[in-house]
Amino acid sequence: MQFIDLLLQHRSIRKFTTQAIEQDLLERLLMAGQAAATSSFAQAYSLIRITEGTTRDKLADLCGNQAYVAQCAEFFVCCADLARNQTICQQSGISSDPGYMEQFIIATVDTSLMAQNMVIAAESEGLGTCYIGGIRNNPQEVSDLLQLPDFVYPVFGLCLGYPAQDPESKPRLPLPLWVMENNYLENLIPDEIKQYDKDVSEYYKTRTGNKKSTSWTEQMEGFLSKESRPHMLEFLQARGLAKR
Amino acid sequence: MQFIDLLLQHRSIRKFTTQAIEQDLLERLLMAGQAAATSSFAQAYSLIRITEGTTRDKLADLCGNQAYVAQCAEFFVCCADLARNQTICQQSGISSDPGYMEQFIIATVDTSLMAQNMVIAAESEGLGTCYIGGIRNNPQEVSDLLQLPDFVYPVFGLCLGYPAQDPESKPRLPLPLWVMENNYLENLIPDEIKQYDKDVSEYYKTRTGNKKSTSWTEQMEGFLSKESRPHMLEFLQARGLAKR
Repeated sequence: MQFIDLLLQHRSIRKFTTQAIEQDLLERLLMAGQAAATSSFAQAYSLIRITEGTTRDKLADLCGNQAYVAQCAEFFVCCADLARNQTICQQSGISSDPGYMEQFIIATVDTSLMAQNMVIAAESEGLGTCYIGGIRNNPQEVSDLLQLPDFVYPVFGLCLGYPAQDPESKPRLPLPLWVMENNYLENLIPDEIKQYDKDVSEYYKTRTGNKKSTSWTEQMEGFLSKESRPHMLEFLQARGLAKR
Repeated sequence: MQFIDLLLQHRSIRKFTTQAIEQDLLERLLMAGQAAATSSFAQAYSLIRITEGTTRDKLADLCGNQAYVAQCAEFFVCCADLARNQTICQQSGISSDPGYMEQFIIATVDTSLMAQNMVIAAESEGLGTCYIGGIRNNPQEVSDLLQLPDFVYPVFGLCLGYPAQDPESKPRLPLPLWVMENNYLENLIPDEIKQYDKDVSEYYKTRTGNKKSTSWTEQMEGFLSKESRPHMLEFLQARGLAKR
């Protein structure tokens, strides 16, 4: 199979078998993750691998009762981490400040590129994956539980394991709606959106599990019209991040 | 070749041949990009493909005189985009607010996962890639040039093209320094850092191009001790993002 075909087949997996991931393979996934590009060579991320059952259970609960957080073979809390670099500066007696929004972006992007490489590497070996944004439901409680220091925050969780389900891939936005040439396209191309809404509705109506009746437009109305984890800015600034 | 080996061989490419990327392949890269996971199905990103020579030249300049921005076969400005979803809500007469830090994180992560899939897809087809964080040097000027609306910001640029150089991969942090078990590891393991500094120094001393004398510790001291694009927070909030 061509690599691009593998990427095109992506879907999140939320049911896993009990099969463990071999230690050798796990190490290769981690090394594939950190092989991704990193801004200023900062490598501004850490992974917390959660092996304790009680910690898994607590995290599953804090993420909004997502059982697969507890059940998957491996669960990682993927953290943006400027504390490591900060400690290095402190040890050298160099005055430093990881409180800029820019550094927050660098660390968040670094973490995302690393994790996406892990996801692709895992899928290429027959594993399934699921990102857990719910880790930001209760970021302070997660930070306390994992003893995260200042200048570190949990960006998302990541479930890995052998799939016990085979869901369909979700249809994505048509290219003309998100790829533009030379400048931003102001209008939304009503016909393209209408067709896409039909495709998405059809997907939800006919997919194997958890059928429902909704369009993309309806989902986005729900997404943007509700409060969106309104604690995040205050939480991050209390951890020393994104302050200026 | 195994997919993981491809990931492990990554290095950024900053010199490209003049060979164009075929339209079919380019479309497959874009579709591979959007196949990545997206939080809440938001697909909160847009790509601006820059085909005009004058716009390329201006961007190369705004990014800090990076010639390869002008010279590579394809250059994309990768934008976090909450404007599309916002417009959908407005058209339906639904009150919405993309100003939360949480939504800023969602859009930044979505953009990063999409772009990393494009990078991997491109590398699997023999192309070289380089992320351009310099797009954040002058984000307001870039936004004006590309007519980006509110609730959109340029996260990074992305160069694609056939490589005209063959640089070595940079050695990454040893696993014990960034992968932890069940809770955050407070100490930096001095022996591991010392060995890693040696490896990085050796890499810079012996690599094919642009040899220099520096360790990772020295680079991180430089990274965190200088002001880091101090305009970013004000810029983003003026665009309606990360305000609350």
